[in-house]
Amino acid sequence: MSRPAQRRPEYHKINKDLFVLTYGALVAQLCKDYEKDEDVNQYLDKMGYGIGTRLVEDFLARSCVGRCHSYSEITDIIAQVAFKMYLGITPSVTCNNSSKNEFSLILDKNPLVEFVEELPAGRSSLCYCNLLCGIIRGALEMVHLAADVTFLQDRLKGDSVTEIGITFLKKQDEKKYRRKK
Amino acid sequence: MSRPAQRRPEYHKINKDLFVLTYGALVAQLCKDYEKDEDVNQYLDKMGYGIGTRLVEDFLARSCVGRCHSYSEITDIIAQVAFKMYLGITPSVTCNNSSKNEFSLILDKNPLVEFVEELPAGRSSLCYCNLLCGIIRGALEMVHLAADVTFLQDRLKGDSVTEIGITFLKKQDEKKYRRKK
Repeated sequence: MSRPAQRRPEYHKINKDLFVLTYGALVAQLCKDYEKDEDVNQYLDKMGYGIGTRLVEDFLARSCVGRCHSYSEITDIIAQVAFKMYLGITPSVTCNNSSKNEFSLILDKNPLVEFVEELPAGRSSLCYCNLLCGIIRGALEMVHLAADVTFLQDRLKGDSVTEIGITFLKKQDEKKYRRKK
Repeated sequence: MSRPAQRRPEYHKINKDLFVLTYGALVAQLCKDYEKDEDVNQYLDKMGYGIGTRLVEDFLARSCVGRCHSYSEITDIIAQVAFKMYLGITPSVTCNNSSKNEFSLILDKNPLVEFVEELPAGRSSLCYCNLLCGIIRGALEMVHLAADVTFLQDRLKGDSVTEIGITFLKKQDEKKYRRKK
């Protein structure tokens, strides 16, 4: 019964094809604007960052997630709550190092590329979905977590899965994320 | 029980905020690329046209709408089925002339501008949502209906409602849309 007025799940749902095709138009436009793939990737990341900083407040209000106590917990919430809420998929999560600050989100399915069969000609270094990395980075920064977020594998580049790597860059702020007894 | 495999309503739903913010990034990019509002409007329309031509097949498969017998019926389907399916809103429809080929979709609420308080400075002629006009035009053309689709009123420009005008340009193809007895 908590916060029913803020959830409005139906009101917030739309058909994803319109989004996926509009995103394709955005990437196509950037490819037209920037000759180098690296510049397109950077621009998508920058745009995503701006979107992430705006999206996070709404996400926290509607998802009703509690405080997180570890990077692992935060990554699980990104995968299981945020991806589910915004893209309708749930990536699996792996931890990639012993200091437990490097994680991967493994996407078996990526709705953003549903209408994309392959990367455009001459665009082999394009990170087509780089907006997602920027969104995650921007959202994390708004909760005082600095992170590097990049594509480690991409099915559009012939890899068997799509993998987003998240490396948290500094210790959690103990004040904000202290463990509750 | 008809065509259950094609409907997948849940799989096709995503949260709309991500779309709305991504659309905002697309418009901002075009404003950066083109100095004149008219060029941005035209480009959004052109992009929308491409999206509409791709979206319509999926729409027809999933919506299970039958054959239409009049422009009025077609406009009702755009408002009540397509807008509902893709944007979660149902505009009201008015017919604007006695020959019944000019219609308006009146949008009391426009999810695409939810994060937009006003048009950017110096962009007073921008049709921020012009992608929608292009999508409708593209989708109609794929079912052999030529139409002019433009914004007649826009809340972002101080009008009391947002109004999209659709003018059907030629007689329906009697073969494809013949009245069933």
